Amino acid sequence: MYPNWVLQRAKLTPSRIALTYEGISWTWEQMKTISLERAKQLSMFNIQDGNRIAILGPSQPRLIFMIYGCMHLRCEMVMLNRKLAKDELAYQIEDANVSLVLVDDEDINLLPEGTNYILFSTIENKNAKGQGVSISEEWALDQTITIMYTSGTTGFPKGVRQTVANHQANALSSVLNIGLSEKDTWLCAVPLFHISGFSILVRSLLYGNEVRLYRKFDPNQAVEDISAGNVTHMSVVAVTLERIIHGLEERGLKASEDFKVMLAGGGPVPKNYIERAHSLGLAVSQTYGMTETSSQTATLSNEDALRKLGSAGKPLFFNQIRIANASGPSEEGEILIKGPHVTPGYVGRFSNKNSTVNGWLHTGDIGYLDEEGYLYVVDRRSDLIISGGENIYPAEIENVLMGHSAIREAGVCGIEDETWGQVPIAFVVLKDYATKDDILSYCLNKLAKYKVPKEIYIVQTLPRNGSNKLMRRKLKELIETNN
Amino acid sequence: MYPNWVLQRAKLTPSRIALTYEGISWTWEQMKTISLERAKQLSMFNIQDGNRIAILGPSQPRLIFMIYGCMHLRCEMVMLNRKLAKDELAYQIEDANVSLVLVDDEDINLLPEGTNYILFSTIENKNAKGQGVSISEEWALDQTITIMYTSGTTGFPKGVRQTVANHQANALSSVLNIGLSEKDTWLCAVPLFHISGFSILVRSLLYGNEVRLYRKFDPNQAVEDISAGNVTHMSVVAVTLERIIHGLEERGLKASEDFKVMLAGGGPVPKNYIERAHSLGLAVSQTYGMTETSSQTATLSNEDALRKLGSAGKPLFFNQIRIANASGPSEEGEILIKGPHVTPGYVGRFSNKNSTVNGWLHTGDIGYLDEEGYLYVVDRRSDLIISGGENIYPAEIENVLMGHSAIREAGVCGIEDETWGQVPIAFVVLKDYATKDDILSYCLNKLAKYKVPKEIYIVQTLPRNGSNKLMRRKLKELIETNN
Repeated sequence: MYPNWVLQRAKLTPSRIALTYEGISWTWEQMKTISLERAKQLSMFNIQDGNRIAILGPSQPRLIFMIYGCMHLRCEMVMLNRKLAKDELAYQIEDANVSLVLVDDEDINLLPEGTNYILFSTIENKNAKGQGVSISEEWALDQTITIMYTSGTTGFPKGVRQTVANHQANALSSVLNIGLSEKDTWLCAVPLFHISGFSILVRSLLYGNEVRLYRKFDPNQAVEDISAGNVTHMSVVAVTLERIIHGLEERGLKASEDFKVMLAGGGPVPKNYIERAHSLGLAVSQTYGMTETSSQTATLSNEDALRKLGSAGKPLFFNQIRIANASGPSEEGEILIKGPHVTPGYVGRFSNKNSTVNGWLHTGDIGYLDEEGYLYVVDRRSDLIISGGENIYPAEIENVLMGHSAIREAGVCGIEDETWGQVPIAFVVLKDYATKDDILSYCLNKLAKYKVPKEIYIVQTLPRNGSNKLMRRKLKELIETNN
Repeated sequence: MYPNWVLQRAKLTPSRIALTYEGISWTWEQMKTISLERAKQLSMFNIQDGNRIAILGPSQPRLIFMIYGCMHLRCEMVMLNRKLAKDELAYQIEDANVSLVLVDDEDINLLPEGTNYILFSTIENKNAKGQGVSISEEWALDQTITIMYTSGTTGFPKGVRQTVANHQANALSSVLNIGLSEKDTWLCAVPLFHISGFSILVRSLLYGNEVRLYRKFDPNQAVEDISAGNVTHMSVVAVTLERIIHGLEERGLKASEDFKVMLAGGGPVPKNYIERAHSLGLAVSQTYGMTETSSQTATLSNEDALRKLGSAGKPLFFNQIRIANASGPSEEGEILIKGPHVTPGYVGRFSNKNSTVNGWLHTGDIGYLDEEGYLYVVDRRSDLIISGGENIYPAEIENVLMGHSAIREAGVCGIEDETWGQVPIAFVVLKDYATKDDILSYCLNKLAKYKVPKEIYIVQTLPRNGSNKLMRRKLKELIETNN
């Protein structure tokens, strides 16, 4: 059994700063008091120990208070993605079979019709005076803290369980890699519903350090915080890193000497960014992680950033990485991962699917390990599109397109984009009349904006192999034919 | 499953320094190569995966290579204490039922007659060329790494299992408390056969930092390393701390700015030492730990050293501390400990004894938690003196004595008394001239009458165990010598 993170952290360092948002700070003692209040209030809505609920809201302190309140009740929290379309949210809410959605008042319009929900304000305003609630001071390692949905090959998103053991193992192996000081302060400008953001909360609970929370990424504010020494760590993707670099350059600023490291995930960072970052005193550590591993599995140290350009580094201490069927270094194959940070499995329709084979997670990503053991991710699952750090699975978009009454077949792939790295485009074969605009507006109702194809090509046939399987890699060739 | 620490560390940071001894250094890659060689050699003496062996030798690199060689073979290592008498060693060797004792050539004369042993040199000189051996790349959490004997209230030492889980949990919660930087270097001048020393090896494997090993404690060398910035961390007990303080004072030196912290275990550090340490720039963190918890359970931060004088601090992140039957703060009782660092149990004659009750280790030590949750260890239970119904804790009297300007060290125990049942007597080592009467009248000013020692013995040294901890039970033997 392990201690309830919130209670233990407040017991150990009650007066240290836990959170800062728009100039206001909360200590760990305050986090505890407020989150216990939330737990009491939640229990008045019949939310009980171990219930599965969903949470939806923008990154602000009230969301964190609500999350910690749910953690006191050992709820399994389905972290809903604010960028998703209503149909996508409806799928997750139904698949995870949640009893209730807790929603920030601002996000009420994002919810699908008929959702069983309570507003944050309703909970916050409940008078819990005199309300008793039993808070577990101990958690089990296999207890599920969060459930996050991620798409797979089938196009049906899978709800990934992230347990106490998973989150702890991740935070602990990360600290063995990047070190720790009491003064560390993490800038969190990535969404809390993603593992990139949620893992910052977990680290702060375990490490006892401050989180400086942004409602959303703001390059000007980030440039100020980084150059003024207000923060020491930040998680970025290539596109946000570039904006910060650009901002520093434009204003003739450098990173403060107190700034320690940028953890850069979601695909490789171009050499040009790394070089510019270095000349600004900005250390960059590239990472390789995913929802199924509760954040990082491998990280490249800043010293190796140029020597091992394009690599995601070595596994963290408790993790192992293998390349399937590789007989020696530099041989490409599917990346397999093992360690205490790997999910034990899924909820909902995939709950019978094993997440691992003999302990190894088959990522579907292709890569190799060089002679020194550095991992290179050659390709995210042959067809994965990474756009501004968000994973986009072509099958998911194709499924939506094929739901349109005029579309017979659909194929989706990614193309290069200066700002986002990649963006999705779609190829459709019609069975009835429809314009590109019809199709686009249909997509806008069904898909998160970042998933909506930037271009729709209407074609006669899609490239397929002998067994009629769509060859997504050949889709791009149709662009020329089509123009 | 967790990775073999030695292999994983060498894989992650092969070229970092792992060990320095008398001016020579070894990298992690070298540690791996040498320890794998030892594993091969050991296998040629029929030592196989999972065997239980004992190890005896002074603190030097060859001992560490041997230990890591055994770890590759997943041996359960009984760590023999070099200060024990032959009868005491014979008891442990028999009780643990070891197949073989691996002994450093210098220590051959310490072994009891009839012991089944191999000399380190015999193993080291074996030609292992062509010898194959299967090394486990993964370890199970419940695998026993070390067995260390500790005395209990019964007088029969118990062989305590320390598992992969125990050692890892300890090193990880410690890092969450004191932080970590790549440049951290631990001075190890405590015995490797004790958990105080062995835990330094475990930390270095997990953290990837350098150990600067001393064959034995040398105050002059320590003063040089600390003032020159060669080391950042050190484990001490009060008496070694005082010698370092004294050495710095005498030579007009201060601790280097790179020096981070002294972890002070084995009983409280007198106020006078803390104050002098602070004026030398030496941070001191008092700890409370034991063999059954694979080192620290609680630690007092340096900032709290004076405000919470005499306290052992708060539990580390994954640990819990309770006082048996205490109904509120500051109430004294037996200290109970829970956490992943607590031993699963014993070997030999105590193998059927449960180490915990509902997960709680009953330490036998008496203490209390104050309103802020800080632990005060009032006394190790076996040392308690009961005089006329009053409880007297030797540590309290020793603290007073050590506040006297002429006293360097003090030890207190009880002797039988017709009137009172027991009365306390004191043994002191002087650093300056003082008479017994001087000391007694000093005590009369500081202590309740019943706590004032009935006799003061001025001696040259106090009986201490391998880690320099005062052995109060042996104090009485000094009476005869002194008379």
